[in-house]
Amino acid sequence: MATLSDIGVSAAFNVLTALAFLLAFAFLRLQPINDRVYFPKWYLRGMRDDPITSGAAVQKFVNLDARSYLKFLNWMPAALKMPQDELINHAGLDSVVYLRIYLIGLKIFVPITVLAFAVLVPVNWTNNALEGTTVVHSNIDNLSISNVPYGSKRFIAHMAMAYAITFWTCYVLLKEYQIIAKLRLRFLASEKRRPDQFTVLVRNIPQDPDESISELTEHFFLVNHPDHYLRHQVVYNANKLSDLVEKKKKMQNWLDYYRLKFERNPSERPTTKTGFLGCFGSKVDAIDYYKSEIEKIGKEEAEERKKVMKDPKSVVPAAFVSFRSRWGAAVCAQTQQTSNPTVWLTEWAPEPRDVYWNNLSIPFVSLTVRRLIIAVAFFFLNFFYVIPIAFVQSLANLEGIEKALPFLKPLVELPLIKSFIQGFLPGIALKIFLIVLPMILMFMSKFEGLISHSSLERRSASKYYIFLFFNVFLGSVITGSALEQLKTYIHTSANEIPKIIGMSIPMKATFFITYVMVDGWTGIAGEILRVKPLIFYHIKNFFLVKTEKDREEAMDPGSICFDSCEPRIQLYFLLGLVYAAVTPFLLPFILVFFGFAYVVYRHQIINVYNQQYESGAQFWPSVHGRIITALIISQLLLLGLLSTKGFEESTPVLLVLPVLTFWFFKYCKNRYEPAFVRNPLQEAMRKDTLERAREPNFDLKTYLAGSYLHPVFKASDDDDKYSAVDDDGWMDEEVIVPTKRHSRRTTPAQSKYDGSDGLSSVPEKS
Amino acid sequence: MATLSDIGVSAAFNVLTALAFLLAFAFLRLQPINDRVYFPKWYLRGMRDDPITSGAAVQKFVNLDARSYLKFLNWMPAALKMPQDELINHAGLDSVVYLRIYLIGLKIFVPITVLAFAVLVPVNWTNNALEGTTVVHSNIDNLSISNVPYGSKRFIAHMAMAYAITFWTCYVLLKEYQIIAKLRLRFLASEKRRPDQFTVLVRNIPQDPDESISELTEHFFLVNHPDHYLRHQVVYNANKLSDLVEKKKKMQNWLDYYRLKFERNPSERPTTKTGFLGCFGSKVDAIDYYKSEIEKIGKEEAEERKKVMKDPKSVVPAAFVSFRSRWGAAVCAQTQQTSNPTVWLTEWAPEPRDVYWNNLSIPFVSLTVRRLIIAVAFFFLNFFYVIPIAFVQSLANLEGIEKALPFLKPLVELPLIKSFIQGFLPGIALKIFLIVLPMILMFMSKFEGLISHSSLERRSASKYYIFLFFNVFLGSVITGSALEQLKTYIHTSANEIPKIIGMSIPMKATFFITYVMVDGWTGIAGEILRVKPLIFYHIKNFFLVKTEKDREEAMDPGSICFDSCEPRIQLYFLLGLVYAAVTPFLLPFILVFFGFAYVVYRHQIINVYNQQYESGAQFWPSVHGRIITALIISQLLLLGLLSTKGFEESTPVLLVLPVLTFWFFKYCKNRYEPAFVRNPLQEAMRKDTLERAREPNFDLKTYLAGSYLHPVFKASDDDDKYSAVDDDGWMDEEVIVPTKRHSRRTTPAQSKYDGSDGLSSVPEKS
Repeated sequence: MATLSDIGVSAAFNVLTALAFLLAFAFLRLQPINDRVYFPKWYLRGMRDDPITSGAAVQKFVNLDARSYLKFLNWMPAALKMPQDELINHAGLDSVVYLRIYLIGLKIFVPITVLAFAVLVPVNWTNNALEGTTVVHSNIDNLSISNVPYGSKRFIAHMAMAYAITFWTCYVLLKEYQIIAKLRLRFLASEKRRPDQFTVLVRNIPQDPDESISELTEHFFLVNHPDHYLRHQVVYNANKLSDLVEKKKKMQNWLDYYRLKFERNPSERPTTKTGFLGCFGSKVDAIDYYKSEIEKIGKEEAEERKKVMKDPKSVVPAAFVSFRSRWGAAVCAQTQQTSNPTVWLTEWAPEPRDVYWNNLSIPFVSLTVRRLIIAVAFFFLNFFYVIPIAFVQSLANLEGIEKALPFLKPLVELPLIKSFIQGFLPGIALKIFLIVLPMILMFMSKFEGLISHSSLERRSASKYYIFLFFNVFLGSVITGSALEQLKTYIHTSANEIPKIIGMSIPMKATFFITYVMVDGWTGIAGEILRVKPLIFYHIKNFFLVKTEKDREEAMDPGSICFDSCEPRIQLYFLLGLVYAAVTPFLLPFILVFFGFAYVVYRHQIINVYNQQYESGAQFWPSVHGRIITALIISQLLLLGLLSTKGFEESTPVLLVLPVLTFWFFKYCKNRYEPAFVRNPLQEAMRKDTLERAREPNFDLKTYLAGSYLHPVFKASDDDDKYSAVDDDGWMDEEVIVPTKRHSRRTTPAQSKYDGSDGLSSVPEKS
Repeated sequence: MATLSDIGVSAAFNVLTALAFLLAFAFLRLQPINDRVYFPKWYLRGMRDDPITSGAAVQKFVNLDARSYLKFLNWMPAALKMPQDELINHAGLDSVVYLRIYLIGLKIFVPITVLAFAVLVPVNWTNNALEGTTVVHSNIDNLSISNVPYGSKRFIAHMAMAYAITFWTCYVLLKEYQIIAKLRLRFLASEKRRPDQFTVLVRNIPQDPDESISELTEHFFLVNHPDHYLRHQVVYNANKLSDLVEKKKKMQNWLDYYRLKFERNPSERPTTKTGFLGCFGSKVDAIDYYKSEIEKIGKEEAEERKKVMKDPKSVVPAAFVSFRSRWGAAVCAQTQQTSNPTVWLTEWAPEPRDVYWNNLSIPFVSLTVRRLIIAVAFFFLNFFYVIPIAFVQSLANLEGIEKALPFLKPLVELPLIKSFIQGFLPGIALKIFLIVLPMILMFMSKFEGLISHSSLERRSASKYYIFLFFNVFLGSVITGSALEQLKTYIHTSANEIPKIIGMSIPMKATFFITYVMVDGWTGIAGEILRVKPLIFYHIKNFFLVKTEKDREEAMDPGSICFDSCEPRIQLYFLLGLVYAAVTPFLLPFILVFFGFAYVVYRHQIINVYNQQYESGAQFWPSVHGRIITALIISQLLLLGLLSTKGFEESTPVLLVLPVLTFWFFKYCKNRYEPAFVRNPLQEAMRKDTLERAREPNFDLKTYLAGSYLHPVFKASDDDDKYSAVDDDGWMDEEVIVPTKRHSRRTTPAQSKYDGSDGLSSVPEKS
């Protein structure tokens, strides 16, 4: 049990670390050489030039203006200055609504903290239930519910507090849902013409022996949407082509590297070896070798392009169908086309850059099987992940290694290596697993067959939240792996489970306070420093960058990683709601987290992150749902806790809360969720009418042509030689877009951080 | 514990009773005087005339043809003869699919019974676990799983059986879903033009200060569905009017009665008293009195009609909007109209005769509140209904009465009355409750705000199923009221509950065998006798019938009462699936039920029932879902049972089954349910195109005018004096249809059995 002074020490340590990070950040961001690491967003928007263009040579790299160092925290007010509407224009609605999650944290917890300190702390403090006992306790426990004696009438205060928390939280959530729904509608209404407004994604087009998929699609929509159908694009399986483009890109990078080397040192022509990793094989002239390689691949690529276009087998049963009006697209997206609900599945097309191309061709039955497999797999991942890790850990100790690989024995017996293995290896398996976890979850979501990056991130986020809830929250509260918990849940009666967990809640307060400080305070301060992008940028800048364009590609702005960051915020909501009525002392720590994180992420969103897609805050319903979940969990745990405190009369009174909260959830779902899922006809009609009046002769067909082109074709715009898009003839009806999963394992990491050659990141530059 | 001979006696008794019912039916149905009781369907379809028209006087009433009595069971093959397609034409798809539920029972349980008797019975029989024990057991238990000793490897046979049952049931269900979906689609495709194909029900039309609801509706749809909107009908609150019409109808009945009395006995003019129930007040000439009363009410009614039409306040915010094509209606029904999902709610309009008018005007927020209230109320009804009944029972004993009403003491002390009170009264409260229960559930569903009779019946059915499951099935198995069970569920761990229930399952086999015989065999035989309609018909026939039309109204064909009958069938599915692997001896009894009930209901559907609406088998998904539920329950109970039998190895093997079954359920839901819920555009377009080619000049607007008229206006077609429909001028835009709940308490009973003056039953006669 940590005492108040322990927590003070921990707080001081974390505050100092955070301050150190902030100071480092303040220093580094002022150096012109790091400008593209800390302000990439402005470069991408074309609103900032390299500082290199002016001033003395040394000032290109180091900032010598002493005054600027004095105001090292001035980024904070700067980050808060930009008004919301401007921020939406600057970074998109997704980012703005993501920031609102932190704001909601403040909105919910500031009044609750005040109320809890005004009411609950005195109620808890003026008891002495803990003094006489032999139970180990800290001074913090004097502020918590543990200090109230068994069967005391004072628990009425905690019950009333639970009611106040519930109503306040629901009120804030309701208001917020209203605001965000309005923001989304205004955002959608104010948007300029976009291809996805007119386009519907059609999947599972049935096979027809007489017609090609393209003909069939055209006939079907001409018959069933005669007044609205405009054009369609079939989706091609351009698997191999995509690989070739990527390979060429890599070769180009090497070529650039060697050319730069040669320029810097013209006396010696660089050489390389043709074998594995350039270490084996015969020695050749590097520049010539890569030039010829690129030419070879370029030819292959051109051939593959032709083949994909001509071979009817490379067409997958999916198409993007565009309509003459938004109304027509809204109708098609929301209706069922045929009596067989497994074919001609229509849905609103995601933004072109949001499409996850690899999943477009999965048939219906396969989708349901995949969902079952992932559900079972996730269950095992969640509850049984400790088993393989324990196994690896058992191998990764000294005896394990000596047994498995006896020839290493003399090596591992060395004192340094021995202590490394003993102190570090057992923990590393778990650490690696936890780092890799978001990728595993993203892989699972991809396997499930979702067709847009935004939906993939949402699905992964909910999986991650479940994992965090069982393995971090419950795992810390009742101290056991999820597997052990599972046994408890099965063997314990329904009313015992909240009791068991509820009883442990007050005792874990100090642990979670430390957790909030380490993960919430120091972690957030680390986020702003961007160590990894900083290092990578400078490596790339040194070895590869020749032109302005190269430098742009070397930047790694990153993006809000909704799939792993949002569930972590949810953990703070959960902690706050659970401890609000139990140990209010935890609340200020959470408040600091929300406030600090809000400022930091606002800064990052303004200056750094570059979103890969814009979903118009489609993730909001799931954020809302998870806060409601946390609220219900907190109510059930308080119920369990109070029933062990000799205050069973509270049970029926408290049981009302989850019922009401759940009803509130259902109400919000019915009332507001459709605004995030469906496309109202009235809005579509309004925009159509306006646009028709403004631009009566607009050529929509030409505008839409090529909009749902796979990035692999758009990327090739750069090198004119191999361009497939210069000939507009075939694009009107048949546009090549590749599909079928081919790089699932690597895409998650790429599409997130690698802005230079990922599948999804190319369109926003063209 | 009942022995084999006990069951034999019970079976003999039930078979004899059933045979007696069948004999009585065979005799009664041959009497011409009962012809309208046993063959009303044919009269309603105009395919049968009264036997009165020909033959000798006595033959009008009694069948003297001796030979016809010899073939007293020939209705059975006759009932089976009609082919399915003809039956769909004759009675509608709802009835045919309802019959298929019994057929599925046979399809599932015939092979399972054969398999169970071939495999499980020998496996169980050749043990002697029960012989040495002191446990009370019957010879039936020798055939059951109880006879297999603890920890025996023979339980593998039961596990294999569970797999076989699961796969066979799922296979049958899948095939059946396919067949029924196909039937439904063919039925919908072959249907003639019907108003509801073109019409969408719009609810929650927002208030507008400048426009009336009618104008607003027209403008909204002219703007947002410009090419498809045809016309609309606003819904009026004709609450009072409906009451007046009903009152007049009652008066007319009395007038008819007294006129008939006067005709039969012309010497004496009948008199009545004007006061309460005709027993108090001044004596007047009955015929004159009722004539003047009817005239008075008629005038009031005409005034009310005018007032409702003119008063803008009597318009409720709902309307039936019709479109030029099925395609336009299908689009409007499936899409969201505005960005606020609580206004302009559109859904496919139910058939005119299926509309439940009273619920059309409930606003959105009220709907969600009502759902919460009903959910809580149903929870209490399900688990706590024993409390008020126990209270009534405690009052309804001798001491209770003497205490509450001391002046009755001398009366209740009489031996006859005393024994009546002691033997009968305590049970009667429960009996009354169980008889009234379907009405309570229907009232709950109505309060929830559903807008069609078919959806009301479906909702009530699922409530009734839950009630039967907890109070009849589990109540009998673990012998306790649902309230006591609730305590058990809360206080027992998740893996103990299936054990507790599973352990009691084999012991209750004999009880359920008796239950099947009493409720399933004798009950079904009683159904065919139609005692209540028989008596009521003859009473009405004697007192009221003058004309052919009166006689038609005196018939009470009734209908399949889906809300109370279907859950009872489901109970047999549950028993069959649960006992198939435990006590196969129960299966033949269930087979007899399914076979016998199939024949009886087929006969009733052909000759008697007259459906109030046609939903096109929309109830199928819920039937399917409940059979799946029963299957999963049976798997969990077998799992619990085997884990108490020293065969815990079975748990993981058996745990696979519910997961797979649930996945199968999800698959079917995704694959087939849309066919029962949504309206594919292709089908709509196909019918539109066909029809436009066949009848290019069809006047749809005239055809649709007045189709969504409340029955209260249609009924008034009969008496020309007060008809409001003769003037077509106002009908084009404004048609009066009443709304707002006004007779919720009485409607359930009326709309089901009372074909003569209910709200819902009038349209199909006009």
